Amino acid sequence: MHDPSHTNPEPDFAALRERAFNLRWATVAPDVIPLTAACPDLPVARAVTDAIAHYIAKPHLCYGPACGLPAFREAVAQHFAREKSAAVDAARVIATNSAASAIALVARHLLRAGDEVVVQDPVDFLVAESARRAGATLRFWKPDANGRFTLDGLRAAVTPNTRALSVCHPHNPLGTLWSAEEVAEIAGFARERGIALISDEVWSDVLLDGARLASFAGVSPAAWVVYGLSKGYALAGLRIGAVIAPDARAAEEFAAAQGFDHTIEGAATVSQIAATAALDHCGAWRANFLAHCTAQRDRAIAHLRTLDGVRIERAPQATFVLFADISRTGIAEDVLAARIEQHARVRVVPGSPRWFGAGAAGHVRLSLATTRGVLDEALARIERAWPAVTAR
Amino acid sequence: MHDPSHTNPEPDFAALRERAFNLRWATVAPDVIPLTAACPDLPVARAVTDAIAHYIAKPHLCYGPACGLPAFREAVAQHFAREKSAAVDAARVIATNSAASAIALVARHLLRAGDEVVVQDPVDFLVAESARRAGATLRFWKPDANGRFTLDGLRAAVTPNTRALSVCHPHNPLGTLWSAEEVAEIAGFARERGIALISDEVWSDVLLDGARLASFAGVSPAAWVVYGLSKGYALAGLRIGAVIAPDARAAEEFAAAQGFDHTIEGAATVSQIAATAALDHCGAWRANFLAHCTAQRDRAIAHLRTLDGVRIERAPQATFVLFADISRTGIAEDVLAARIEQHARVRVVPGSPRWFGAGAAGHVRLSLATTRGVLDEALARIERAWPAVTAR
Repeated sequence: MHDPSHTNPEPDFAALRERAFNLRWATVAPDVIPLTAACPDLPVARAVTDAIAHYIAKPHLCYGPACGLPAFREAVAQHFAREKSAAVDAARVIATNSAASAIALVARHLLRAGDEVVVQDPVDFLVAESARRAGATLRFWKPDANGRFTLDGLRAAVTPNTRALSVCHPHNPLGTLWSAEEVAEIAGFARERGIALISDEVWSDVLLDGARLASFAGVSPAAWVVYGLSKGYALAGLRIGAVIAPDARAAEEFAAAQGFDHTIEGAATVSQIAATAALDHCGAWRANFLAHCTAQRDRAIAHLRTLDGVRIERAPQATFVLFADISRTGIAEDVLAARIEQHARVRVVPGSPRWFGAGAAGHVRLSLATTRGVLDEALARIERAWPAVTAR
Repeated sequence: MHDPSHTNPEPDFAALRERAFNLRWATVAPDVIPLTAACPDLPVARAVTDAIAHYIAKPHLCYGPACGLPAFREAVAQHFAREKSAAVDAARVIATNSAASAIALVARHLLRAGDEVVVQDPVDFLVAESARRAGATLRFWKPDANGRFTLDGLRAAVTPNTRALSVCHPHNPLGTLWSAEEVAEIAGFARERGIALISDEVWSDVLLDGARLASFAGVSPAAWVVYGLSKGYALAGLRIGAVIAPDARAAEEFAAAQGFDHTIEGAATVSQIAATAALDHCGAWRANFLAHCTAQRDRAIAHLRTLDGVRIERAPQATFVLFADISRTGIAEDVLAARIEQHARVRVVPGSPRWFGAGAAGHVRLSLATTRGVLDEALARIERAWPAVTAR
């Protein structure tokens, strides 16, 4: 399974079978390849584990500061300034127990029961779920015929009662990316309408083909931005993310209201140390990783397009997932996914309303952040099994 | 500052000045000794850092299971069976992002706005705050003339509308401990009245004079128990705690309702690995630590009782904090604490209503989990400064 085309080290699959939960290696039958939850199979960068080892060499694991270690907050701020066209002050950054925790807390902070919130459809489960858990009523922003979320679609979704807009940027599962101009337009529209803006940017480190992202943290007035290191640096188990508040004062109010000042909320210091090392020292690791993700995407698309009933109209510009339209097979997405597992011994994520919204019907999602060898094997298995999978 | 009377290694004070936040070394002036937040100055056990190092040697930091690593859940269950007279099944245990997070989640899970909850007064801030954040109305269980929380006091606090009782066991800041019989009585009373029971047992690993604790997790029907490793194993920065639900089904419902199944909640895997090592392999470390805490308590009590206007009627049976009655100085607790810092260059925690409830007035709290040398220096400074501190 060695892949000479990238320099990230090879995964230890025995370790993954012990450790990779959330629909992945530790949770599937031994002969099943999980192209499921969006967490890379690749080992983390050496600088990350070195930083943890260096930290624990002094065996004091004391309370960290309420809103995060100064070095972590500064690293996130500089990362956004350097890579995401957003001049973020560290005082706006609050370390959170994962990006998932961050979006749930932001939704709880901004929304009250009955508030109307616009979310994309389809979209990652947590964007809608965080609003639902805050008691909000959802309205849906549908993509246009080209699979893009445009201002026209947003205008059609918003009502005079809309209180907030929660977006996924870049978009999971479609892999679309807004230009800096589109980001400014969307933010401007929200401002005019007095709509609060939440931007889930957990995928913003996974840009393909050298694309650049403009964060909603850089527009004025800034959105509430959610960030995390599970996708771009493979740190899912460390549960480290951040909220970037619109300004320093909003950050303080958020920290007080949501329990950070009372140790109810917060992120483990060791996780912050690891994340800081990732942001400060792992640019080369990530460049290799992104080149690998781009190659994996191209291989998967070329392969899947040969299958009867599968359409992939546009290559994703971001993320390491592929959202394949299987509607022409005439088989429901959950049935098809179950048949792929049964006949090909590959698990994919069905585009169920539960996970991605009603707009995901007729699709399955494949995560490609594994080795070239594992992906090739999975694609070959799917191709061989396709007649059985799609038999009527 | 070497202390030959115990075998825990010496603290690295330079590291503490960089790392120990939450009112401690990293937050005070360089010449101030912080006897404040309840987190030991002592280094963690070698087995803890060894376990982290062993884990990261395989550099896969993947998603853990929603409710915690099986080894962690089993370690907590066995720890409660071994030490706290509670036969707990691992299926009842859910790993949380600190004990503070745990009590807030349990309160949110059990309570609705307007519910009446009985809490002790005084009591640790988080017991009352978690109920308040869930929208509850508080009623207060007062200690008797001997400083103990008895069934008579509980009967006086409860009304027909009481929905829940939230207790701190052992009690912070009083250091009192209920016997197994008292635990059974309190649980029986709650059962008769149909009152849900929450027991904050974050201090249950810090028992002095060889005392034993009976957990509310072992009574029937069991309480919701909150546990953490910040006090007994000095792991505050790792933010690792647990909820022990009354039964496996309640644990599942809690995990689904509070977002564990969706990665919104959960604990970092590295923190769980460290905590598992602490519970499984650090019995000798903790025995030394507890012997040290007992000696520190005795030294502090003997010393503080010589000061005009200070009363310590009962030695704490548990915790490494001392709650000194300073009411006879005639000076309010916050003023006295500020004067101790000003004149003695020692910071203590005032018994403010904000931190411990109205019943804490006239007290200051001192945390003693530092070296003998640092404690002796702090006590000597307080003694020298006492005339200036208490001047009218």
